[in-house]
Amino acid sequence: MDKLYIIKIGGNVLDNEEALGTFLSDFASIQEPKILIHGGGKIATKIGDQLGIVSKYHEGRRITDAATRDLVTMVYSGLINKQITARLQNLNCNAIGVTGTDGNLIRAVKRPIGKIDYGFVGDIAPEDVNAAFLNFLLQQNTVPVFAPLTHAQGEILNTNADTITAVMGTALSKYFEVRLIFCFEKEGVLKDVNDPKSVIRNLNSELYQKLLDEGSFHEGILPKLENAFSAIRSGVKEVLIGEHSHLIANIGRETKGTLITA
Amino acid sequence: MDKLYIIKIGGNVLDNEEALGTFLSDFASIQEPKILIHGGGKIATKIGDQLGIVSKYHEGRRITDAATRDLVTMVYSGLINKQITARLQNLNCNAIGVTGTDGNLIRAVKRPIGKIDYGFVGDIAPEDVNAAFLNFLLQQNTVPVFAPLTHAQGEILNTNADTITAVMGTALSKYFEVRLIFCFEKEGVLKDVNDPKSVIRNLNSELYQKLLDEGSFHEGILPKLENAFSAIRSGVKEVLIGEHSHLIANIGRETKGTLITA
Repeated sequence: MDKLYIIKIGGNVLDNEEALGTFLSDFASIQEPKILIHGGGKIATKIGDQLGIVSKYHEGRRITDAATRDLVTMVYSGLINKQITARLQNLNCNAIGVTGTDGNLIRAVKRPIGKIDYGFVGDIAPEDVNAAFLNFLLQQNTVPVFAPLTHAQGEILNTNADTITAVMGTALSKYFEVRLIFCFEKEGVLKDVNDPKSVIRNLNSELYQKLLDEGSFHEGILPKLENAFSAIRSGVKEVLIGEHSHLIANIGRETKGTLITA
Repeated sequence: MDKLYIIKIGGNVLDNEEALGTFLSDFASIQEPKILIHGGGKIATKIGDQLGIVSKYHEGRRITDAATRDLVTMVYSGLINKQITARLQNLNCNAIGVTGTDGNLIRAVKRPIGKIDYGFVGDIAPEDVNAAFLNFLLQQNTVPVFAPLTHAQGEILNTNADTITAVMGTALSKYFEVRLIFCFEKEGVLKDVNDPKSVIRNLNSELYQKLLDEGSFHEGILPKLENAFSAIRSGVKEVLIGEHSHLIANIGRETKGTLITA
């Protein structure tokens, strides 16, 4: 099986022109099949402020009303996705910018209204991914660049980019030996959130459970770890979490960061 | 050779919810391979007004400064493209929303600065179209939905949607028997712009030249006709110009509108 890298970047890369330039250059140099997944960083919030769209949150989770959904559709799949795609093309990387709507790549279920109505948010599972078409795009040597939007019943839905990364990795593990890379602002998963040097270099299910039981993880990292182990349990070979400048330029070689395996 | 329809819609369809719904439903019903090309209608101007981006024009042609380029990237390839794609998916039409940047579908040349600097505008020719990849997408039974943006040197460029339609048609005529359909607000090309009933039903090169010499055409229609005949001269089989509700539901059958042939 060929290797496939699925790389997710967040605001710390997108919001910093120098970091983004370095990242895109490193990313374009990866020889293996690859997929990039990006969010929107602070740009969506900034444009939303100009348009008078106020983001609402419930317990830290964004509520996607219709205006916010249209905003993130414009910014994620329009502005940011096409800027990244054009820059990658210029680096001889044949990027194709897509969302879950395009080619029916990810169909979702609109989150049911419970105590809270999260609005236009899509929940997804690996069987919602059109893995055959993604594989076809990869076989054509194109590089999917994915904005975190899905669809259901003719509506675009906002979906967490980490979740998309994990679910897409699982769906593609029937075609590839998949390694997910979650780039974020820290060097890896920290044992002590106040000590940036306390990177856990290797994390397997057993150690994860032990540290969970001990309450060792900072709660900010928990959704990422849940996504990572969910992918590992369902076919993904490895997950790497850390800071992009260490991970992408050294891909396939010795790297810093936290390596997650079964 | 299989037939391929390349259909361009403008503001009169995009800006009218009822017209757009009818159009998308008719479009989804077309059995042959097909491509949709759309602009942004008044939506870009409206959002630009909210963001304080003032469109500048020179002799009726928009000057695309950096802010305007980012605006149309957001609105054309984000908001409108993904809304259309999601709605087509819901009509069982496997749409894939793209721009010229995606999969390097249309590389452009940034328009040289002459007396006027038109800004981030891309000029294109048939050899700039990645016809092989478009053909691959069509062979996968996906339906490209194209926002009129191209790219050069890592920059997104604004390109006239009628021109893209004509150039893409020419490029794809090595794979398909191509029919272009330009939908606009009139029933066809009018002999007398003040008489909506004066539709020229059949227009060939000879009659075109005669009417040109007589100065019979309203100047608003001239760029469309130039695009149409340029495509016809370089491989496109037929061009149909008219009002979408007459043309799309009756595709391949007797239609109103102006039929342009060699």
